[in-house]
Amino acid sequence: MRMGFTGMTLDRADHLRRDEQALKLARMHPSARFLLLDGLKPVLAPDADRLLWVRRSQAPDNPSIFLGLDEEGIPHFALAGAAADVGGIATDARAAGTRLSAPEAGIVALARSLLDWHDRHGFCAACGAPTRPVKGGYGRQCDRCTAQHFPRVDPVVIMLAEKDGLALVGRQPGFPAGFFSALAGFVEPGESLEEAVARELWEEAGVRARSVRYVASQPWPFPSSLMIGALATADSHALSPDFEELEEARWVSREECAAALRGDGDWSAPPPLAIAHWLLRAWVEGQVPPS
Amino acid sequence: MRMGFTGMTLDRADHLRRDEQALKLARMHPSARFLLLDGLKPVLAPDADRLLWVRRSQAPDNPSIFLGLDEEGIPHFALAGAAADVGGIATDARAAGTRLSAPEAGIVALARSLLDWHDRHGFCAACGAPTRPVKGGYGRQCDRCTAQHFPRVDPVVIMLAEKDGLALVGRQPGFPAGFFSALAGFVEPGESLEEAVARELWEEAGVRARSVRYVASQPWPFPSSLMIGALATADSHALSPDFEELEEARWVSREECAAALRGDGDWSAPPPLAIAHWLLRAWVEGQVPPS
Repeated sequence: MRMGFTGMTLDRADHLRRDEQALKLARMHPSARFLLLDGLKPVLAPDADRLLWVRRSQAPDNPSIFLGLDEEGIPHFALAGAAADVGGIATDARAAGTRLSAPEAGIVALARSLLDWHDRHGFCAACGAPTRPVKGGYGRQCDRCTAQHFPRVDPVVIMLAEKDGLALVGRQPGFPAGFFSALAGFVEPGESLEEAVARELWEEAGVRARSVRYVASQPWPFPSSLMIGALATADSHALSPDFEELEEARWVSREECAAALRGDGDWSAPPPLAIAHWLLRAWVEGQVPPS
Repeated sequence: MRMGFTGMTLDRADHLRRDEQALKLARMHPSARFLLLDGLKPVLAPDADRLLWVRRSQAPDNPSIFLGLDEEGIPHFALAGAAADVGGIATDARAAGTRLSAPEAGIVALARSLLDWHDRHGFCAACGAPTRPVKGGYGRQCDRCTAQHFPRVDPVVIMLAEKDGLALVGRQPGFPAGFFSALAGFVEPGESLEEAVARELWEEAGVRARSVRYVASQPWPFPSSLMIGALATADSHALSPDFEELEEARWVSREECAAALRGDGDWSAPPPLAIAHWLLRAWVEGQVPPS
């Protein structure tokens, strides 16, 4: 199973980020390629399911982030810019994640998360002064108090509780009608992934669970989550949902789940772009580690 | 295996954090208990390996974070304060993690990460204005631009590459003499855990690896990491360390590793507080998932 937004093949070339002079040269490289994001929407070619890469001369004069080097050593960058100025199509990042090849979808995940972080972190959280981007976009520097700030990656656990051949799915209040997914929540300070899974199942559904088993992970650039998928064994089928978090929770069988994944069930399952799809599929197919 | 800093038994009671009035009442509860951290060092009882809990009347008038409820429903809080004022001992959090029971070590992990985050995030990263703590310490609110900010949890991959009965360990420049551990690095935006493991092994040691298998996770409150331990299969034993990140890297056998874990090897292994200890031990004992 290939998780959505994984599969970037650029070499992130961390050593270049530490070398401002080398980065400057990379930006001036005659073959350097630039991806625009228009209001955080990646700009795609007008005629095909691929990113529209432009030359430096076509790119606006905005700060760029360093994405990495391709196999030929050509540097790739991303920056904010208007799709109309380069003849491309600003495309919702979720749609792009589905339409693009895995290497290009991975680039969208990186570029969207980093550019969004810069948009919302222009000031020093330690002293309030303006900060400036450094390290090819992988940091911001405060010149007043010298604090360095680094992009956020927010770990989220997403999990299926199972018991006696049934798995637990739920609906958040904002979900489309009939749509159910795995439960999920942010990992908090001072807990392991296993503890976060047990806590979220308890908080959201009133379910006590144990034997947490890791299944897979996925970056989710809305804005910068790291989704960590797991399976857990519930103590009972009793439910007590927190209705602020969960509009409805229900236990479903493998048959119901398989139908939903095929698109002919009586509820809708997440699409293959989302790790929840693969969690459900792994459970239906018995492809998860034993407890 | 019980990871260091896991095992907190307080109910974090997320619903209370959303209710400012209930939190105020919880703070006034006659049985409420308060933990002081003195310069981020938890304050222990002078005569035993346990936390020194004090009453509200003994606690200074500093903002407190809500830790959770114990089994009797008694609310617990943490705040900055001087050990000397309450007759306790300010204790290094690593030492506390080793000396305290698992439930109390887990409390230290949560309290240290959250209080440190508040210390270093007094201003709005979006607009530069001062912010104020909300949600029992699980957020900060900007009253100028209305942005909400949440505590960081920074995922870190820590991994052993293995090939033909040998595992890869390394020394960072700041390590004590003779000390080797598993390689580690922060997960970056736009990558899965599996991709982060492969990238870090490549960047730090020049090793190509595949078949990444999850082993365990641990909160590490220095300042707010989530350590995610994994094993990976290396393509070859060839090494090309990045000497800025790694002073030395070497392949070790299970016998060498077992001796180091026992404390009688020709290098020193991480102590049981650290997930790296358990990663090495799991590898020595063959307790890791097959590739």
